[in-house]
Amino acid sequence: MRRDEVNFCPRCGAQLVETPRFGRVRPTCPACEWVFFPDPKVAVAGLAWRGGQVLLVQRANEPFRGLWTLPAGFVDAGEHPRRAVERECLEETGLAVRAGALLDVIAGAEHARGADILIVYAVEVLSGELRPGDDAALAGFFAPQDLPPLAFTSTRQILARFL
Amino acid sequence: MRRDEVNFCPRCGAQLVETPRFGRVRPTCPACEWVFFPDPKVAVAGLAWRGGQVLLVQRANEPFRGLWTLPAGFVDAGEHPRRAVERECLEETGLAVRAGALLDVIAGAEHARGADILIVYAVEVLSGELRPGDDAALAGFFAPQDLPPLAFTSTRQILARFL
Repeated sequence: MRRDEVNFCPRCGAQLVETPRFGRVRPTCPACEWVFFPDPKVAVAGLAWRGGQVLLVQRANEPFRGLWTLPAGFVDAGEHPRRAVERECLEETGLAVRAGALLDVIAGAEHARGADILIVYAVEVLSGELRPGDDAALAGFFAPQDLPPLAFTSTRQILARFL
Repeated sequence: MRRDEVNFCPRCGAQLVETPRFGRVRPTCPACEWVFFPDPKVAVAGLAWRGGQVLLVQRANEPFRGLWTLPAGFVDAGEHPRRAVERECLEETGLAVRAGALLDVIAGAEHARGADILIVYAVEVLSGELRPGDDAALAGFFAPQDLPPLAFTSTRQILARFL
């Protein structure tokens, strides 16, 4: 939930007032004392290999529609990030994968609806047939010397570090 | 923001209705179409060494008041997790630190107000004098064979892995 979406108290419906709370000015409910703490949006991305090629998906939606990135998506509250990356890989590529080593944590949203924190795992492909779905228009394996146009700085950063 | 706190649309103030959206039933605004996606709460923890001893803080607040843990706290939206861990270490121990290697990402809230995702960094102590503050009643360095009673499974897990 972003700051610019928060005008009314989600608990009791009263209009929020900017009030000093816990060291800074925060949207606060004058009726029930609810305080808005903005949580970061967290995403996961999976780095999968097959025959010396890396698994990428082509974005079906804006921003960066048509450009390629790692299979990735948001983590829900209460969802284990390893399960989240396995779910996203299955949804976007049709491949069942298992999350392996933690590779990196990258911070900084790259667009208004982007994640604040991206957790990157190595993933092992277990089974399935390549079949793009959800946010992915296409899915494929690419040789490091023959990558398609990439969508995010974080994608380039991960590939530069681990390819 | 937890599900049990979300009854009214924070954008327009209308009462939310449980509605099928994006693959599951989600609290949705009948007036402005706002949809609640629960974000995970993200915390950071710092593992600092000095003379073969590890930096721990004693919790001043419930839950686990009086038990010890790594300096830690929540990441704000837009805050870099490395900056967050440096801020928390300073607030809780009085020590200026620099975030170093990513050590682990641990998932699973240990209590109702706990973090869903804990990102753990090695931190290097740069300067300062030990002075507990914020959520910490005490702060100190402890030898691995002489640890005080610990607060969280994640604390024990990190210390077992890195001590």
